[in-house]
Amino acid sequence: MGADAGVSALLANMVKVVFTPSGRRGSFPVNTPLLHAARVLGVDIDSVCGGRGLCGRCQIICAEGTFVKHQIASASSSLSAFCATEIKYGTRKTPLVGGRRLSCHTLLLKDVVIDVPPESQVHRQIVRKEAEYRDIALDPATRLYYVQVEDADMHVPKGDLQRLLEALASDWQLPELTCDNRLLKTLQPLLSEGQRGITAAVYDNQTIVALWPGLHECAYGVAVDVGSTTIAVHLCDLTSGQVLGSASVMNPQIRFGEDLMSRVSYVMMHPEGAEEMTQVIRHALNKLFLEVAGQVGCTIEDILEIALVANPIMHHILLGISPVELGGAPFALTTDAAVEMPASELELVINGGGRLYILPCIAGHVGADTAGMILSEEPQLQDKMTLLVDVGTNAEIVLGNRQRLLACSSPTGPAFEGAQVSSGQRAAAGAIERVRIDSETLEPRFRVIGSDLWSDQPGFAASIDKHRVTGICGSGIIEVVAEMYLAGIVTEDGIVDGELRNRTARIVESGRTWSYLLYSPLDGGAEVFVTQNDIRQIQLAKAALYAGIKLLMDHIGTQHIERIRLAGAFGSHIDVQHAMVLGLIPDCTLDQVSSAGNAAGTGARIALLNRGSRAEIEDLVKNIEKIETAMEPKFQDYFVDAMAFPNKRDAFPKLFSQIAKPQPRVDPAGLSGGRKRRRRH
Amino acid sequence: MGADAGVSALLANMVKVVFTPSGRRGSFPVNTPLLHAARVLGVDIDSVCGGRGLCGRCQIICAEGTFVKHQIASASSSLSAFCATEIKYGTRKTPLVGGRRLSCHTLLLKDVVIDVPPESQVHRQIVRKEAEYRDIALDPATRLYYVQVEDADMHVPKGDLQRLLEALASDWQLPELTCDNRLLKTLQPLLSEGQRGITAAVYDNQTIVALWPGLHECAYGVAVDVGSTTIAVHLCDLTSGQVLGSASVMNPQIRFGEDLMSRVSYVMMHPEGAEEMTQVIRHALNKLFLEVAGQVGCTIEDILEIALVANPIMHHILLGISPVELGGAPFALTTDAAVEMPASELELVINGGGRLYILPCIAGHVGADTAGMILSEEPQLQDKMTLLVDVGTNAEIVLGNRQRLLACSSPTGPAFEGAQVSSGQRAAAGAIERVRIDSETLEPRFRVIGSDLWSDQPGFAASIDKHRVTGICGSGIIEVVAEMYLAGIVTEDGIVDGELRNRTARIVESGRTWSYLLYSPLDGGAEVFVTQNDIRQIQLAKAALYAGIKLLMDHIGTQHIERIRLAGAFGSHIDVQHAMVLGLIPDCTLDQVSSAGNAAGTGARIALLNRGSRAEIEDLVKNIEKIETAMEPKFQDYFVDAMAFPNKRDAFPKLFSQIAKPQPRVDPAGLSGGRKRRRRH
Repeated sequence: MGADAGVSALLANMVKVVFTPSGRRGSFPVNTPLLHAARVLGVDIDSVCGGRGLCGRCQIICAEGTFVKHQIASASSSLSAFCATEIKYGTRKTPLVGGRRLSCHTLLLKDVVIDVPPESQVHRQIVRKEAEYRDIALDPATRLYYVQVEDADMHVPKGDLQRLLEALASDWQLPELTCDNRLLKTLQPLLSEGQRGITAAVYDNQTIVALWPGLHECAYGVAVDVGSTTIAVHLCDLTSGQVLGSASVMNPQIRFGEDLMSRVSYVMMHPEGAEEMTQVIRHALNKLFLEVAGQVGCTIEDILEIALVANPIMHHILLGISPVELGGAPFALTTDAAVEMPASELELVINGGGRLYILPCIAGHVGADTAGMILSEEPQLQDKMTLLVDVGTNAEIVLGNRQRLLACSSPTGPAFEGAQVSSGQRAAAGAIERVRIDSETLEPRFRVIGSDLWSDQPGFAASIDKHRVTGICGSGIIEVVAEMYLAGIVTEDGIVDGELRNRTARIVESGRTWSYLLYSPLDGGAEVFVTQNDIRQIQLAKAALYAGIKLLMDHIGTQHIERIRLAGAFGSHIDVQHAMVLGLIPDCTLDQVSSAGNAAGTGARIALLNRGSRAEIEDLVKNIEKIETAMEPKFQDYFVDAMAFPNKRDAFPKLFSQIAKPQPRVDPAGLSGGRKRRRRH
Repeated sequence: MGADAGVSALLANMVKVVFTPSGRRGSFPVNTPLLHAARVLGVDIDSVCGGRGLCGRCQIICAEGTFVKHQIASASSSLSAFCATEIKYGTRKTPLVGGRRLSCHTLLLKDVVIDVPPESQVHRQIVRKEAEYRDIALDPATRLYYVQVEDADMHVPKGDLQRLLEALASDWQLPELTCDNRLLKTLQPLLSEGQRGITAAVYDNQTIVALWPGLHECAYGVAVDVGSTTIAVHLCDLTSGQVLGSASVMNPQIRFGEDLMSRVSYVMMHPEGAEEMTQVIRHALNKLFLEVAGQVGCTIEDILEIALVANPIMHHILLGISPVELGGAPFALTTDAAVEMPASELELVINGGGRLYILPCIAGHVGADTAGMILSEEPQLQDKMTLLVDVGTNAEIVLGNRQRLLACSSPTGPAFEGAQVSSGQRAAAGAIERVRIDSETLEPRFRVIGSDLWSDQPGFAASIDKHRVTGICGSGIIEVVAEMYLAGIVTEDGIVDGELRNRTARIVESGRTWSYLLYSPLDGGAEVFVTQNDIRQIQLAKAALYAGIKLLMDHIGTQHIERIRLAGAFGSHIDVQHAMVLGLIPDCTLDQVSSAGNAAGTGARIALLNRGSRAEIEDLVKNIEKIETAMEPKFQDYFVDAMAFPNKRDAFPKLFSQIAKPQPRVDPAGLSGGRKRRRRH
């Protein structure tokens, strides 16, 4: 046989295969397993069991070409017939239907087009709901790998660990792994239990952090947001990226102080306080981990990783670091870098070898939560000058675009969260959250959390929880103060106008100032007032926020914000127009102002599901310009200037140009009434 | 001024300096600090405080040239005059005498020769007593570095950890350090206490493992040898390499079984046994650490590192790994690699961040103790075919030279340690350790541990501890059996010759065999016999040892051993000639047979003091050829062959050619008597 004949014979035995959606293609000898062809071509196909037909992760669909679903391959088949392993897989787990095959046990016979469905791709995209964001490419730091470890051999007296490492290196291209020392004692019993088959959880392509006998396929992680007020935990499947469970709890540290600074003060006065607070927060997290594990019916050992965001004080307290240095100038962080460690080092109870990743902090007042918000919101990819605001006890403010990013924190205090306000309360059933005041009659109407009805609609009283209006929540306070201002009850200086007592019995004297009676229950329960001091608290808070934003605008040299994203619970519930009326945020086209939801928590989830995002945010925060508001002489000036309510519509031309148009779901009467009244001045 | 004039002016201001013993030399501008010049020239000078005149490590001696020891420099001075810092150092610590100066605070004025004394060198040599070995180059894995950390600054809001890392990178060329997370909570209080001056202990140029406020200079480490019988700990000063304290204790696991296999059996029968044994060994180590710290008056926190050797079973038990797999074929180790971890992971109490390094194991029966012996003995550097033997319950045997190294373990059993022998006991006061038997009268004389007198010398009875002979230790058993053989009491087959009862009352019937009465106390206490079974136990043990050695000789293809080193307590006390008479070890020129002392422990000390030696031994053990005696069909043959005592002097031509010469400190009568007697056959 000559060379040509040999090549011809070889070519005659070659089969073409095209993989979609990647479009990768190549020719392979007849009888090449599809998974092997995919690996050679660099096609992204998942596998945990390493081609043993056990895990079912490598399923593909025959898009063009044929195969027969029984054990005799016909002459026209493009793929080998269903084999015993596939049939066994179908009986043991989910039957292979819809043209699905296990690519590890399917051989190429004739030319064929193979579709790799998203769920079979390792690096599949997790689609984010909002179209403007990049999807999350699934690439978790912790992954599972199954290997069959060779038997021990007296002639080659190496350790079983070394045999495991060799199997992982050769089967999965994971050279130079290390292994957590705590696993050493479990290795031989597990190898024996799994008949030398073992699944390893590998962290960051570097370290074996957990082991199971035989094939193990559960790999979960938790994204955690430790807020001053609320701790939220989301359980994600690390192999699909889906959020499978969620739980949250009030931060139990609240008993040491409502806001961050009062907790720092507690530590200053009680040397044991830091340790106590560390314990309660870790305990709360452990309870939440159990709760989310219970929701999906997995064990705590199946949770292999935590990605966590927190503000600097929560961050330090969780790490067991006293927050005292953060309580005063120069507000020195112990570390601003991302922190990575076994979760057990912080007594966090997940898998014994599970890892914890905490996003980097940015400055003494700008924490890992802000880093999470940036990771989620991607201002560094925006052309528009973008303002990100997360309002809590402090407001974290980020301003910039793909050219520059600046960040600062501003001490808004807890008024926006309903604290330090006479009838203020947290957002819970019974709290007033929406308010409209008729500028003619000065009569209010409102809605409370838990009811869809306005207070002037029939059946309102019966519709509310326990028939009780209990107070005003943060978004309600913004609205009632804005409405009082628009109705002329409050002046531009923030004074409740006592003269109006002649027009309405709702203006009530209290001490040397006046209050507005928002709600008076029929049965003689507690009345809800808005007092002069409440107005002052809102003025202080909104002035601090506005001054911080103005400072960043100064530094970046812009007069115009093109896009505003409001993060956090407050940002989700606040009515943007009312916020602008009060001058909380700068003027901006209304449709460019939106809620970012729990952006910090989303950032934690991104860090959990995509390990590349960690290096990304760690690099990014180094280049963020940090502005310390306490050090800026202009801050005080801006703060004082911002105390008043905007005294002319010129201050918010974009807002008032849009507010004239009918707004769906917003009561135009209240606002237009306000505007009319202001015209009379 | 032209260029030439400029160069002349420059040269006129340059001063030459020569450093001894390195011989490095160079020219520097007048007023260059000596330490700076040394650093530029790569001269090895120590410093912990980084040139702040605090630690005194950088002392030098002005060898040629002059300086004045008061604060006015004369015109003829080669070095700047004593400065205030040096005077303060002298009052605070040891005065600078004998021409000593702090090189960091001494400036070059005129040409000078500077001697760097050994104690000022970072990589000074630790001289080993035996001339044939390389000295240990001091280069410990854990070192101290003092830095002054810049103050926190609101305008540059990075973490204090980042400021510390920057100081270590710039002052000490330690880039990319990480820091143990457990230190985070201590960082800010320590920086505050030390007024931003802080000393960091850095492990392996990679990780900060401990911190102290201000300048801290105590850095100790412990070298540990966990033997089946004895646990020994040596405390070393990591900055000088000196052994400052030592302590040892009987391995408390003895209550679970005298020898290794009985401890493994205990675990097989008691599932909780492994955990129990792990606990007692860790507890024993912690007590020893406290004891050696007490000896030098340091705190346990000053012990920064442990380097440890152990046989495979002790190694696994210490790590918390069940030794059951090591108890039967295929004798699979869990790991054969060196193990490195925070000591706290094994509940070993030294400095909270102190590290533990365990040398690699070689095979299922050849452990980190053998690796330590190899590190100490360096057979891989020898031209001569070298045999290393460490006799314990198992004998570890290493054979080879710079071409090849082979290792195996042979199951000698505990007879050499005095166990399973009727009057056997551990080497302790009252034990017979030396024996001579007159071949004419068959009368013995002996020495016991604790006395310098032979039993036939005046005052012997009064000289021994509590006036009691309590038994025979391992080396005593070798001698008495060899002497019995040389005196004809025992035949070549190992039978006690009952016919001799006619010549001496010391031959006594016991059952169907005969015993030899070695000692009978005057006061009617316990008599010491050597029974037929005792001889059998020694035969079994020595046959196993010899068969193991023979196997390695076969594999390496040699008939002649050129050099023998006997390690361990047994190797230190055994009389080489008697051992050869019994056929324990192969024939070899007598002056090439010597004790290696506690070679395994020395290996641990080398690993503690020189981090390069760790990579060296880790590489070396990979290339050692491991022979599993249990798998070798010839082992059994060699074992059976070696049961008899050598039946002709031809088997030991080198021994017998030398034994004719007078041997100092050995009683020639006993040996020559034996030889004479044998001639009669």
